[in-house]
Amino acid sequence: MKYLNQREAQNIDIELFNEYKFSLDQLMELAGYSCAVAIANAYPLKNLSNSNIIVCCGPGNNGGDGLVCARHLKLFGYKPTIFYPKRTDKRIFTDLVTQCEKMNIPFLVCLPNESRLIDINYNIIVDAIFGFSFSGELRPPFVNILDRLKQATIPIVSIDIPSGWDIENGNPDGLQPECLVSLTAPKLCAKHFNGKYHYLGGRFVPNALAEKYELNLPEYPGTDPCVLLKKEVTSTEKSDWVF
Amino acid sequence: MKYLNQREAQNIDIELFNEYKFSLDQLMELAGYSCAVAIANAYPLKNLSNSNIIVCCGPGNNGGDGLVCARHLKLFGYKPTIFYPKRTDKRIFTDLVTQCEKMNIPFLVCLPNESRLIDINYNIIVDAIFGFSFSGELRPPFVNILDRLKQATIPIVSIDIPSGWDIENGNPDGLQPECLVSLTAPKLCAKHFNGKYHYLGGRFVPNALAEKYELNLPEYPGTDPCVLLKKEVTSTEKSDWVF
Repeated sequence: MKYLNQREAQNIDIELFNEYKFSLDQLMELAGYSCAVAIANAYPLKNLSNSNIIVCCGPGNNGGDGLVCARHLKLFGYKPTIFYPKRTDKRIFTDLVTQCEKMNIPFLVCLPNESRLIDINYNIIVDAIFGFSFSGELRPPFVNILDRLKQATIPIVSIDIPSGWDIENGNPDGLQPECLVSLTAPKLCAKHFNGKYHYLGGRFVPNALAEKYELNLPEYPGTDPCVLLKKEVTSTEKSDWVF
Repeated sequence: MKYLNQREAQNIDIELFNEYKFSLDQLMELAGYSCAVAIANAYPLKNLSNSNIIVCCGPGNNGGDGLVCARHLKLFGYKPTIFYPKRTDKRIFTDLVTQCEKMNIPFLVCLPNESRLIDINYNIIVDAIFGFSFSGELRPPFVNILDRLKQATIPIVSIDIPSGWDIENGNPDGLQPECLVSLTAPKLCAKHFNGKYHYLGGRFVPNALAEKYELNLPEYPGTDPCVLLKKEVTSTEKSDWVF
């Protein structure tokens, strides 16, 4: 399986829109849905003492995936809360917010000001802050936000990229998610992922595109929208490595 | 579970767009995807000698669901072929066609002129011709198309409404699908459905909307996008009725 550099990830994205004529609505819906399914797989409702999930959304498409993910988590029976500090006026994003609001998903005005309070109030953090377009330095308010999330001890699920990581080289000082859901194909930084669960989601890549970029994608099982690439082997578990 | 009359189905649709701010792209993607999953459930790849499926798409949104369904069937490993005789110029529909074309799904210029040839070349017919907006008389070319499909003997899967049926009263002379995938909630005509599998798909209905219309929707299992409402009880099978 190929791990994409940033340029390749961007080119595939452009090609999905311009050549294959997918709309952002379609791709975010499928991507966010696959993330929700991956989360439900890794953290089944029945294993959680409470199913409060805080979904932290960034200003771009990664944040949009997070909004869609939150909506599907709600439909699956989880209790998502959204933190979406820097919004865009683009129609699809304001609509995604309305969908969530009208489904009674609460929006936080600010993150709890102590990481301890995040740990107390939620069971899982979804990191939908920055995706594969991120580069350069973190800017406010995200410096503080990532710091606070880093100090929390509940599991973090990152959508596509652990936020703050370099897309190719990762970032040892950044978030260390327990679960990573790569979308379309893993990016190079995923080689530095040391968490428990690595999923691939976004089952919409046309064969011709996969071949052109030599993605060597794994087979998705049955009709599943995501596939488990790696599950941490603990002493009591048999190996579950798919690759 | 409630069976909707035509007015209720239309009002729910309008409310999903106007109040909940879903886009047509989003809802057709989720609806078509749930149909593909239902088909893969009812007719697993491993049970088919060939997986050629002819997807017949009508001029409206039901046809759009069919185009999305065909694309996901292709991703699941089936071999869909699309027949889409009366197209619209709206952007989402032309884009859905491009997505299918670029995924190497063939489009038929005309239906085989004998039903026997449909039986020989395909294993399943997907009927995505008319949905819950249909009323009045069938017009060409759909009179002939439905006649030819009616004479075929391979299983028909109807999306939301068996085409040509009155939304509330059905039509004993219309298509008789083996499988019906109701979307959002079943329409009244589904009470006249005598086929083998009845699924509910389109897992996107917000709770408040379900309550307002007293839909009493069944629980979707886990993260599944569709739920089996009825499976025909044969002498060799134990009852599989869910309701």
